[in-house]
Amino acid sequence: MKKIGSQTIQFINTPTILETSSIVGPKESQGPLASYFDQCLEDEFWGEDTWEKAESKIIKENVNSVILKSGIPATNIDFCFAGDLLNQCISSSFGLREENIPFFGVFGACSTFVESMILGSIAVEGFANNVLCATSSHFCSAEKQFRFPLELGNQRPPTSQWTVTGAGSAILSKTGNGPYITHITSGKIVDMGIKDANNMGAAMAPAALDTLICHFNDTGRSPNYYDAIITGDLGHIGKDILLELSADKGYNIKNNYNDCGVLIFDKESQDTHSGGSGCGCCASVFSGYFYKQLKEQKTKRLLLIATGALTNSTSSQQGESIPGIAHAISIEI
Amino acid sequence: MKKIGSQTIQFINTPTILETSSIVGPKESQGPLASYFDQCLEDEFWGEDTWEKAESKIIKENVNSVILKSGIPATNIDFCFAGDLLNQCISSSFGLREENIPFFGVFGACSTFVESMILGSIAVEGFANNVLCATSSHFCSAEKQFRFPLELGNQRPPTSQWTVTGAGSAILSKTGNGPYITHITSGKIVDMGIKDANNMGAAMAPAALDTLICHFNDTGRSPNYYDAIITGDLGHIGKDILLELSADKGYNIKNNYNDCGVLIFDKESQDTHSGGSGCGCCASVFSGYFYKQLKEQKTKRLLLIATGALTNSTSSQQGESIPGIAHAISIEI
Repeated sequence: MKKIGSQTIQFINTPTILETSSIVGPKESQGPLASYFDQCLEDEFWGEDTWEKAESKIIKENVNSVILKSGIPATNIDFCFAGDLLNQCISSSFGLREENIPFFGVFGACSTFVESMILGSIAVEGFANNVLCATSSHFCSAEKQFRFPLELGNQRPPTSQWTVTGAGSAILSKTGNGPYITHITSGKIVDMGIKDANNMGAAMAPAALDTLICHFNDTGRSPNYYDAIITGDLGHIGKDILLELSADKGYNIKNNYNDCGVLIFDKESQDTHSGGSGCGCCASVFSGYFYKQLKEQKTKRLLLIATGALTNSTSSQQGESIPGIAHAISIEI
Repeated sequence: MKKIGSQTIQFINTPTILETSSIVGPKESQGPLASYFDQCLEDEFWGEDTWEKAESKIIKENVNSVILKSGIPATNIDFCFAGDLLNQCISSSFGLREENIPFFGVFGACSTFVESMILGSIAVEGFANNVLCATSSHFCSAEKQFRFPLELGNQRPPTSQWTVTGAGSAILSKTGNGPYITHITSGKIVDMGIKDANNMGAAMAPAALDTLICHFNDTGRSPNYYDAIITGDLGHIGKDILLELSADKGYNIKNNYNDCGVLIFDKESQDTHSGGSGCGCCASVFSGYFYKQLKEQKTKRLLLIATGALTNSTSSQQGESIPGIAHAISIEI
C-alpha cells in the first residue's frame, strides 16, 4: 500500500470483500430494500428482555451468519473490528464476547462501519489473512439513550432521522475474487458549528464534502469515475446539502449520488422524516444491497462514504456544536 | 510485519516511539510519579465550566504538547488514533477537532491507549510516516457518568479504583532511534462472569492472563525476558489476582511485574482503595514514567499490557457480567 495525496491510501494487493451479511428490524423490513437483507426481524426485542440485549443479539447473529456464509473457520480470522452507538460500545463487546477472535473496538458514530473496513483493510494489506468488520444500531436503544424514553411518544422534528435497527458485517480477505477495496480516504473532524441535535444530516454534510473532495484530489478521479457515490446516512436533508455544497465546489454528483439513509426507508409511506441513520444503516445497506450489486456487476465502481456525528447528549446539553467525520472507501470489481 | 503464533505480530521495521507527553490532575500530582509527568494540574476544571470540557482540554493540550516536543509538523502526521471513557468518546472528538489530522476513534475502555498504539504501529509498519496516539480520562466526568453524582459524596467500596485524571500521547514514526515497538499481541474478549462493577480489577485480570500467556506462547519468550511487565490498570486487587493466576499457569512474574494503577497513587496516604484506573492511567504512566525509563535505558525491554472492562452502567443495571480485554505491546531499545 502507498499513500497518495494527503489522506488517501492506495492498496497494491487490494483486499477482497469475501462475504457480507445483513440483518434488519421490522421497520426496515417494510422498506424498499427489504428483499435484499439476509434476515428481517419481526419485532425489536427478538426474544430478549431489553433493547440493548436485542442489539447485542443482532450483531452476534449477524457475525455468526457472515462467518458461516464465508466458509472461513472463526479460528482463521485474525482480528475483529467492531463498534456501535451504545455508550462504551456494549452492543459489540457483549455481542462478540463469545467469538474468541482478537477484538478492536472502534467508534466513529455512524461512520463506524467504514472506519472498521478501513482499519481491517490496512491489516489485510499488511499481514492478516482474514478480518471481520461488524457494526450495529437499534432504534429503541438509541432513542432511549440519546433522546427520550420511547414510552413518552415524543414528537420528532422534521429534520430528525430514524435510527436503523440492524447490523452489517463483512469479511475482508487477502485472497478472493473481489469486489476489491482499492483506496481508502480517512476523514478529518469537521465542525461547522451546527448545534441542532435533531439535524445530524446538516452537521455531517460538511465532513462528507471534505472527504469527497479530498478523495477526488488525492486520486485524480472525478465524480463520473464511479457508478455510485453513496454516503452513510446524511438522510434527505444532508443529501440535499451535500449536493449543493459539492456543486458549489465544482463537483457534479447529481447523477450517481445517493445516501443509505434515503434508500432504506420509503419517504412517503414510512414517516421517518429525514430518513435513516445509525451505524447499522450504512452497514446493513452496504452488506445487504450494494455488496450484491457489486457481486452481480450491476455496480462496478462504488465510493462508500460513511458519515458520523461525534457528539453525545451531555455535550449537546452543555451547548456544544456537533463535530462530524466521514471516511471513504473505493470498492471496485 | 508477520504474524507469529495465534495473536502476535512481529514487526520487521519496528516503529519508533518518537516522543510522548503526559498530563495529570491534582491527585495524581501528589502521587509517587508526580515528578515524571510533563504537566501537573492544580484543579480538576482547568478553567473550564464542566468536567467534560476540562477532559477535552486535557487531551487537546496533551496532543499539542507531544506534537511540539516531537518537532514534527501536524501536517506530517498521517493519522490520529484516540479514545476515552466518555459516552461516544467525546473527550477525544471535541479535544482533537481542531487538529486537522485524519482521525480514527477507538474504544477499548482502559485498554484504549495500547489499542491505539497497536493500530498506530500497524499503520506505521505499513505506509504511514507518523501517527499520533492519545487517550484521556477524568475522575469527575467518569464518576458522574458511571457511578454517582460526586456531590452525593457516596462511599466507595474497598475494591473500587480511582479513575485517573490525565492523558498520555505518543507519536509513532517510521524512522527514529527507538524505543521500538517490536511485537503486538492483541487480546480477545474474556468474560469470567464477574458482575461487581466496583471490582474492575477482578473482571479484567483473566483477560490480562490470557494475553500474557498468549504473548509468551507466540513469541517463545519467558517472563524473565522482560525488565518490566506492566499492566494497564488492574489496581492492587487485580494485580494480586494476576500474580496468582499466572503462577498457577507456571509463569512466575513476581520479580518484574507491576501495574500502572498501583504505581500512580500511594496506597497508604492517598486513599484510592484498590489504586488507579481509567484509560488516562496507563497512558500517563507510560508516557510520563516508562517512556523516560526506556529512553534512559533504565528499562530495556518492556511488555505493556493495557486492560479494559467492556461494560457500561446500563449493562450492569441489567445484570450483565463484565467482559474484559487486554492488549499487549513489546517495547525494546
